[in-house]
Amino acid sequence: MNNRGILFVLSGPSGSGKGTAIKELMGRRPLKLSVSATTRAPRPGEVDGVQYYFLSKEEFERRIADGEMLEYVNYCGNYYGTPKAPVEESLATGQDVLLEIEVTGAKNIRTLAPEATLLFVIPPSMKELRRRLEGRGTEDAATIERRLSVAKEELRQYGLYDYVVLNDTVESCADQIETIMEAQKRASRYMGQIMERVMEEC
Amino acid sequence: MNNRGILFVLSGPSGSGKGTAIKELMGRRPLKLSVSATTRAPRPGEVDGVQYYFLSKEEFERRIADGEMLEYVNYCGNYYGTPKAPVEESLATGQDVLLEIEVTGAKNIRTLAPEATLLFVIPPSMKELRRRLEGRGTEDAATIERRLSVAKEELRQYGLYDYVVLNDTVESCADQIETIMEAQKRASRYMGQIMERVMEEC
Repeated sequence: MNNRGILFVLSGPSGSGKGTAIKELMGRRPLKLSVSATTRAPRPGEVDGVQYYFLSKEEFERRIADGEMLEYVNYCGNYYGTPKAPVEESLATGQDVLLEIEVTGAKNIRTLAPEATLLFVIPPSMKELRRRLEGRGTEDAATIERRLSVAKEELRQYGLYDYVVLNDTVESCADQIETIMEAQKRASRYMGQIMERVMEEC
Repeated sequence: MNNRGILFVLSGPSGSGKGTAIKELMGRRPLKLSVSATTRAPRPGEVDGVQYYFLSKEEFERRIADGEMLEYVNYCGNYYGTPKAPVEESLATGQDVLLEIEVTGAKNIRTLAPEATLLFVIPPSMKELRRRLEGRGTEDAATIERRLSVAKEELRQYGLYDYVVLNDTVESCADQIETIMEAQKRASRYMGQIMERVMEEC
């Protein structure tokens, strides 16, 4: 019998590099990456069930009403969220699930999924974050200042998470996350099934 | 500036092999092993400050009264406990401290040292625990049955600890503890100093 998998929720300010860390991690570990649902239209090349589950507004709202979304946000008039069922199916078969969400969504996840382990990916310094945002070359000075100020506000909320990972290099960041994932397998709150087996046989 | 060290408290039923795991661990990591104080008389070869701090009953009781003990028990008419000051000094200089205590003492440590990380070392199975206790050849059948029954009672309290480590082999046990220690360096509750540095420089 498999032990139940662990739901790892990964979040972090824009520019913290959580996306590249996740890509590195997926090449290393047998993790199931949760696919989000959205009501926005598919872009060319996007496949239903791969980049997103594409749902109508009505269907998304029905799922919210029926408690079928683990978390969701409404951003620029479109819904984005995590369908509960695929996450639950993977966890039940012993598969660990990785869920990437925005910091705004992470605030609610503790209530909605109390059994989840929450990781916060942060840049090694504000200076480095500025360098990364400026390096993209896609945003004007005012936008960068606004992003930095939002990031600083988000960093203040690190206490909401179980672990904080400094993203210095992508390798070191993925190393830290792997270590945390290994350690969490021994967290007492996930040891219920194993403890039952250890105790029952006597 | 060093970050504050972490206090790791290790406990486990008799026969779980925590002593050998600690020996293995001390050879691997720069850990400070906390030395207990006791009112029992030194045995031949025991040196004050090495195996134990040897204190008079009056001095031990004064320390309890003055809040200078992190935890203590009275066992067979003698006090055993952990002096606060040396632990505090090591933590302040950034040194991690390892403290081995009996399961009875571990129940209070959450209140007395809320910042500590608590590890519970357990045998891989009750069958294996029985094998180990019988293998010692030092106890009669009735004593072994009593120890097994105490161990089972202790195992039920695994939820008091942060992590549960299965001691299958000494190497695997030390590996698990090392992984947990590394992960705890990223636990958000220990990240206060680092977060201040990350945020302040912007």
